[in-house]
Amino acid sequence: MTHEDFEHVYEYAKQWVLEAGALIRDKIDTPMTINTKSNPKDLVTTMDKETERFFVQRIKEQFPDHLLLTEEGYGDDIVSMDGTVWIIDPIDGTMNFVHQKSNFAISVAIYHNGIGQIGLIYNVMDDILYSARKNSGAFKNDTKLAKLKNDVTLEQSLLGLNHYWLCANHLVDERVMQDLVRTVRGVRTYGSAALEFAYVAEGIIDGYLTMNLSPWDIAAGVVLVNEVGGITTTITGDSLDMLKKNSIVACNSCIHPKLIDDFLKKGQK
Amino acid sequence: MTHEDFEHVYEYAKQWVLEAGALIRDKIDTPMTINTKSNPKDLVTTMDKETERFFVQRIKEQFPDHLLLTEEGYGDDIVSMDGTVWIIDPIDGTMNFVHQKSNFAISVAIYHNGIGQIGLIYNVMDDILYSARKNSGAFKNDTKLAKLKNDVTLEQSLLGLNHYWLCANHLVDERVMQDLVRTVRGVRTYGSAALEFAYVAEGIIDGYLTMNLSPWDIAAGVVLVNEVGGITTTITGDSLDMLKKNSIVACNSCIHPKLIDDFLKKGQK
Repeated sequence: MTHEDFEHVYEYAKQWVLEAGALIRDKIDTPMTINTKSNPKDLVTTMDKETERFFVQRIKEQFPDHLLLTEEGYGDDIVSMDGTVWIIDPIDGTMNFVHQKSNFAISVAIYHNGIGQIGLIYNVMDDILYSARKNSGAFKNDTKLAKLKNDVTLEQSLLGLNHYWLCANHLVDERVMQDLVRTVRGVRTYGSAALEFAYVAEGIIDGYLTMNLSPWDIAAGVVLVNEVGGITTTITGDSLDMLKKNSIVACNSCIHPKLIDDFLKKGQK
Repeated sequence: MTHEDFEHVYEYAKQWVLEAGALIRDKIDTPMTINTKSNPKDLVTTMDKETERFFVQRIKEQFPDHLLLTEEGYGDDIVSMDGTVWIIDPIDGTMNFVHQKSNFAISVAIYHNGIGQIGLIYNVMDDILYSARKNSGAFKNDTKLAKLKNDVTLEQSLLGLNHYWLCANHLVDERVMQDLVRTVRGVRTYGSAALEFAYVAEGIIDGYLTMNLSPWDIAAGVVLVNEVGGITTTITGDSLDMLKKNSIVACNSCIHPKLIDDFLKKGQK
């Protein structure tokens, strides 16, 4: 695809994200069915499914040769990142959606031959669209985001981290994570991976880390964080693989080596 | 003081909070001096001090017989809650103020003979004022907040909790807190006690707990949470004392007994 082709796709993607968000806002106070998926904390609502179908329908009609990797199962059975692949989480932060009716996002990414070209993260209730196109920078609505600061130390950092990783678990040594909490200046938890990536891109937090996320949780965020000079890897510093679950470190490049070498590599199980 | 007297004081307090917030917004991008207080994570800026002086000056002029209990030391040396006492945190969430330039609040409470009469929590950058007057309900800007739901279980709850209490510390058994994290549906950390009280009042989270806060961190939040039918106690279920530091549970009344009896009483040191 050419640059113009991506611009064309971007305009559609942006339009659909804003439309889907408006539909969610319209229905936010309508009673909805809430079910659980893999565990009692893994929620899904009729709105997640409806929003995903909204995207699948439009993409299949407008771009019949594009593929879809999606959370709720209305997409394709993807085994390769060849070609153009949309990676979509219709509602990232479903628990916030259900409990708070805010602080959730639509996350849409477009990858071509495995490379992230477009990332859109839409904070629906606050009407804030984070967008990025490869080599064209990242934006918060119409404002271009600055490159991340180059003088941040881990000790001065604010990190995004779920409390769960400070409790005994099968993916990371909780004592190492507790040491990390004591080392950094502060830790925040907002409940939406997509928004936490956006906050890293915005410099609201200096890093976000977690142990086990699906491609749709991270795909748009990766494009966004890369465009402001941030770095996105697994907790061992390896490249992310959009065909499977990954551990994640998305952060300011300044703190990445110490975060990986002094903490996360030591903590991995 | 009569009801009319409190209304009179409320109007002044509200006006000053909005004015102080506007001043902070005007200066948010001005370089400022940042110092540390009790430890490297306990930040204070020139803006905290300037904002506190703004309140002290106006209150002393308008209400010379009122007393002030304040964070940065420009208030009075309070040894009793007799009379009318303003309890003020000029910037609650100073770390967010410094790092994020958002997600911090001005917290102003007015107590009379030990009883909270007025609570104001102003999310400065989002221009959202939470306000409450005893027996008159709580508001988010001009919208009256609903009473908290009466069908919430601890297992379905979202809690506000700092990660620090999941690490070894001298106030609470971290293993009990880890059990609590596994028990509830989700945990959030926003970095401003005043805003977390406001989120409890709004039903965004079902409870907020922490181990060691000063009166100015909690005084306005207590009034706010009480006005929506929530409950505010120490972690052992005792009354809060505005003359000293307290542990805090501010939550939906439905989850209070289980939170206290099954977790916090067992965890206290």
